[in-house]
Amino acid sequence: MDIVRHGMGSRFSEMSIVDLGTAKLIYIAGQVAQDTSLDVGGQTREVLIFIDQLLAQAGADKTNITSARIYLSSVGDYAAMNSVWDDWVPQGHTPARSTIGAKLILSEYKVEIEVTAAI
Amino acid sequence: MDIVRHGMGSRFSEMSIVDLGTAKLIYIAGQVAQDTSLDVGGQTREVLIFIDQLLAQAGADKTNITSARIYLSSVGDYAAMNSVWDDWVPQGHTPARSTIGAKLILSEYKVEIEVTAAI
Amino acid sequence: MDIVRHGMGSRFSEMSIVDLGTAKLIYIAGQVAQDTSLDVGGQTREVLIFIDQLLAQAGADKTNITSARIYLSSVGDYAAMNSVWDDWVPQGHTPARSTIGAKLILSEYKVEIEVTAAI
Repeated sequence: MDIVRHGMGSRFSEMSIVDLGTAKLIYIAGQVAQDTSLDVGGQTREVLIFIDQLLAQAGADKTNITSARIYLSSVGDYAAMNSVWDDWVPQGHTPARSTIGAKLILSEYKVEIEVTAAI
Repeated sequence: MDIVRHGMGSRFSEMSIVDLGTAKLIYIAGQVAQDTSLDVGGQTREVLIFIDQLLAQAGADKTNITSARIYLSSVGDYAAMNSVWDDWVPQGHTPARSTIGAKLILSEYKVEIEVTAAI
Repeated sequence: MDIVRHGMGSRFSEMSIVDLGTAKLIYIAGQVAQDTSLDVGGQTREVLIFIDQLLAQAGADKTNITSARIYLSSVGDYAAMNSVWDDWVPQGHTPARSTIGAKLILSEYKVEIEVTAAI
């Protein structure tokens, strides 16, 4: 068993990968938008691009996602977030998902998404 | 390694199962009550039935749960949720658990529970 | 496959360990401070000690942490929590992490941290 980190900072890593030999389990840190001036749809789009990029670094893609946790600063943004999510999520491979309202670290953040995956 | 989805919708699946060959890791989506007129005890009861049903589809049961995350729309409902949980959770097999207060997607939802399991 | 529980109570366990034979996956319950009179820094310090102790019971340590989820009762405490976290988290082994604001079960709780690990 081996743990590999990607996007490693001194505080946290963007991704941890547990290599079990026959499979890898992937844990991706909660992703937020870099351009915080965007509305919830634009922020969701950015977040999902970051997740795609991290999965690619692990040799995986969005069909490998097992679970997603979505934090919205306003639950009233549920439909707007979903309209971007629905265009992105791969049909036939939709993950288990939970969505809740929560305070995010910057008041400009409208959405944060964290996922686990397996490959 | 293989990922199997149950209760698959176009937006998310109710359950993802990672088949490692020697073991399966189960990720269940956050479950909420269907009858939102119920009080927190009644909603918890419904949610736990849904979790039992999903685990059964994976060939597992509640003794296989490894972790649970409970979201309450009002933390004042902690005792009422627990009284239903305590009757349900299998003695000798209690999972790691976290409970926090959070806004849920519908204002009628009083509790949402998400679990992971292994078999 | 075997699931071992530590700190098992009738409601939940402090830790579940999934033994896959070649590796173990560890799920630790959300940890809160015992001395709720402490400020957020002091509570974070206590919580991280509890996590260290649980990991040791699993034969692991903080370099094995794969993901962490931090719940703050006030997101304004982010910097104060981080100053304790940054002193504790092992360089070269930082986990994937998410931090959100949430209501905690006791109003005196300022921080709750839940982690997963692998060994």
